[in-house]
Amino acid sequence: MALPALLLEVGSHQLEVAETLISVGEFLVIFLAARVLAELMVRWQLPSILGELLAGVLIGVSGLHLIVPPDTQAQLSAGVLALVGSLAEITPEAVQHLYNETFPNLQAVSQIGLFALLFLTGLESELDELVAVGAQATTVAVTGVVLPFALGTAGLYYLFHVPLIPAVFAGAAMTATSIGITASVFGELKFLRTREGQTVIGAAVLDDILGIVILAVVVSLAGGEGFAIGPLLKLVAAAGVFVAAALFLSRTAAPGFDWALDQLKAPGEAAVASFLVLSLCCFAAQAIGLEAALGAFAAGLILSSSKHTHAIDAAVKPLVALFATLFFVLIGTGMDLSVLNPFEPANREGLIVAAFLLVVAIAGKVAAGWSYLSKEKTNRLVVGIGMMPRGEVGLIFLGLGTQAGLLTKPLEAAILLMVIGTTFLAPILLRLVLRGSSGGPDLDPLAEVPT
Amino acid sequence: MALPALLLEVGSHQLEVAETLISVGEFLVIFLAARVLAELMVRWQLPSILGELLAGVLIGVSGLHLIVPPDTQAQLSAGVLALVGSLAEITPEAVQHLYNETFPNLQAVSQIGLFALLFLTGLESELDELVAVGAQATTVAVTGVVLPFALGTAGLYYLFHVPLIPAVFAGAAMTATSIGITASVFGELKFLRTREGQTVIGAAVLDDILGIVILAVVVSLAGGEGFAIGPLLKLVAAAGVFVAAALFLSRTAAPGFDWALDQLKAPGEAAVASFLVLSLCCFAAQAIGLEAALGAFAAGLILSSSKHTHAIDAAVKPLVALFATLFFVLIGTGMDLSVLNPFEPANREGLIVAAFLLVVAIAGKVAAGWSYLSKEKTNRLVVGIGMMPRGEVGLIFLGLGTQAGLLTKPLEAAILLMVIGTTFLAPILLRLVLRGSSGGPDLDPLAEVPT
Repeated sequence: MALPALLLEVGSHQLEVAETLISVGEFLVIFLAARVLAELMVRWQLPSILGELLAGVLIGVSGLHLIVPPDTQAQLSAGVLALVGSLAEITPEAVQHLYNETFPNLQAVSQIGLFALLFLTGLESELDELVAVGAQATTVAVTGVVLPFALGTAGLYYLFHVPLIPAVFAGAAMTATSIGITASVFGELKFLRTREGQTVIGAAVLDDILGIVILAVVVSLAGGEGFAIGPLLKLVAAAGVFVAAALFLSRTAAPGFDWALDQLKAPGEAAVASFLVLSLCCFAAQAIGLEAALGAFAAGLILSSSKHTHAIDAAVKPLVALFATLFFVLIGTGMDLSVLNPFEPANREGLIVAAFLLVVAIAGKVAAGWSYLSKEKTNRLVVGIGMMPRGEVGLIFLGLGTQAGLLTKPLEAAILLMVIGTTFLAPILLRLVLRGSSGGPDLDPLAEVPT
Repeated sequence: MALPALLLEVGSHQLEVAETLISVGEFLVIFLAARVLAELMVRWQLPSILGELLAGVLIGVSGLHLIVPPDTQAQLSAGVLALVGSLAEITPEAVQHLYNETFPNLQAVSQIGLFALLFLTGLESELDELVAVGAQATTVAVTGVVLPFALGTAGLYYLFHVPLIPAVFAGAAMTATSIGITASVFGELKFLRTREGQTVIGAAVLDDILGIVILAVVVSLAGGEGFAIGPLLKLVAAAGVFVAAALFLSRTAAPGFDWALDQLKAPGEAAVASFLVLSLCCFAAQAIGLEAALGAFAAGLILSSSKHTHAIDAAVKPLVALFATLFFVLIGTGMDLSVLNPFEPANREGLIVAAFLLVVAIAGKVAAGWSYLSKEKTNRLVVGIGMMPRGEVGLIFLGLGTQAGLLTKPLEAAILLMVIGTTFLAPILLRLVLRGSSGGPDLDPLAEVPT
């Protein structure tokens, strides 16, 4: 139904049927695989986002070939082509053609999911938490951004002779701790309300902002005319002004928004009003040369002090559950993990790069745990490991770099392994450290139940 | 970001910026216009869906030319082309080209909204209500479907010499009462719990099902090889079996679904589980030759007796608020209302057709109010007028007919006027009739407040 021109051709009804079968079938396969693997992850006390990514790997070019991005040049599974072809009474070649032609629709929907996720991340940011843990969180955040970024970029550039732009991309993908993953890990371990927990959450909020500013700068540079100091300063300034404006508006604009929302009487007011702010911020960010993604995060930040955050949250979460899932699964489908096969000599370099990135990613954040001064006794190892898990922002870098054709296959796979590795290792290491360090009732999940 | 191939070309960054500005700008314009007009409608005690349609008319080919479907051959507003072009540093011609190329993405998202809306309509259907008012509601529903369909189709075919397929489309567009609009009108008038109110709601549920079966049959026929009795019977049988299976599953499948949903632990379980059922039903419907839209409605019906309907409802409503809005606005943008200008002699026929459809649409449903036997005194005029408002299903027929290029411009506009006319007139006439017939405390909105 989405390609009306086809309806006027001969056999148009068959093509329309095939197109609907393809679109609906894509959703079916993606959501089924994502849900099964997300459920497995949750049962293993790992974040569900990892399951979505692995679901993509499972059904994509590294797996069953049920969903393959056309730009990977991989073939769709012959079984799928034959099934859709026979149901719609057209040839498998026509199915493949229709599939390639309608794939941008799927990507467009996944983009809405990405923006919704960044909006939600901004919305759930607690600026007040950051203020309370103050200087410590700021030091941890800045150190934890600068160290992995500098070490990663320099190491790739000088040791592995990766070109500058991909090296910067990979370095930037290591900067931002995933608030969602960190918060859920500390929450599951009942460690969210400790001094260490608060410092980590505060720092994660801040380095998410830093990471997205870096994202805006890096993506604009990568798409533009290369690496020059003039545009760089202009972009940093634009990003700084934009974030400052967003922070200012998050303190001041909420009453106006709330007033406007209270005036709305037609149904769906929270969803539509938030989407309007979201679209406006994305448009503004893109119009001044930044990434629309930064606008999405800023929109969430601006509305984070609204009294309607609960309603907004409820309206945006289904979009995230459906379409951000789509985004992460699609990233997974394009991943060619065969480059990580250690028995293939040509792959050795990629594996060494992956190991290097993982070490830098862990060491950079753990070192950040020792970066601040404190009169009180804090477990710095817990803070450092708590900052370890990368997530959305790292994957967004990966996705954008892949979409732009900037990353080589080994580097793509290495970044993916870094994200997967830090996210898998953090909960395991944290549990070990907490068991060793304090012991006693704190460690019994049933002893302390935050509400 | 959705057209990665463009990134590899010269000036690709500009094109990417332009594309994001176009996509985000489209959302901005559509949601702003839809919200402003929906709010106006609600204040005039009219359904907000009318505002969304009128918003499309306002910003579309009959209005400001901010959003024009490429197949209408209309030009985008020069101001929009110049603005996006100057922000992205590309030519207005390139903007128009990108706009046309990315428009299917917008249509794909709006299609998700349509399916979500039909799913929600199924989900909110109360089969038990229908059983309670029993035979009366069934008679009203069947009469109210048959009369407008037969009179409308025959009148267009014999009196106005419209070809059979478009005549059938227009007739079918008059069959289904809008449950949403009817329920909200009776609710606003505090008349929902009367015998008349229950009969109307029961009949509206049933004729929605009938309308969607007719939709499935008509759309399949229109896309296929014309009007033959064999395929017709096959389709009616398939539709009948499909609806019967859906009704059976809605009585039996809910416990299994609830059990599965209770097992899910990863976030977003209600949204994803419903979307899986939705995709599955759409796929099944399309695979046996019916419309995917019927599958969406059936999916809702199947889940309507789940104990998680509240959570499902909450997860699906934001999708409807955002993307069904998009669907109705896009229908509005393609409407060329200039054919309704009575000062243009060439338009006279279209206006006469519109008047004819409106009279048939009103008379057919009002007559249905007298179709049943009842020992109790019921206000048959209230039942008849209550069945009057057409809504989603009528507009879906209109949208599909327009997409398929089956309807002439005058016929399109006439169907739109029929939907708008019945929906505008029903609340006004109902208020007049209720004031005249019973009087007293019943009519004071403050006297009886159902909860």
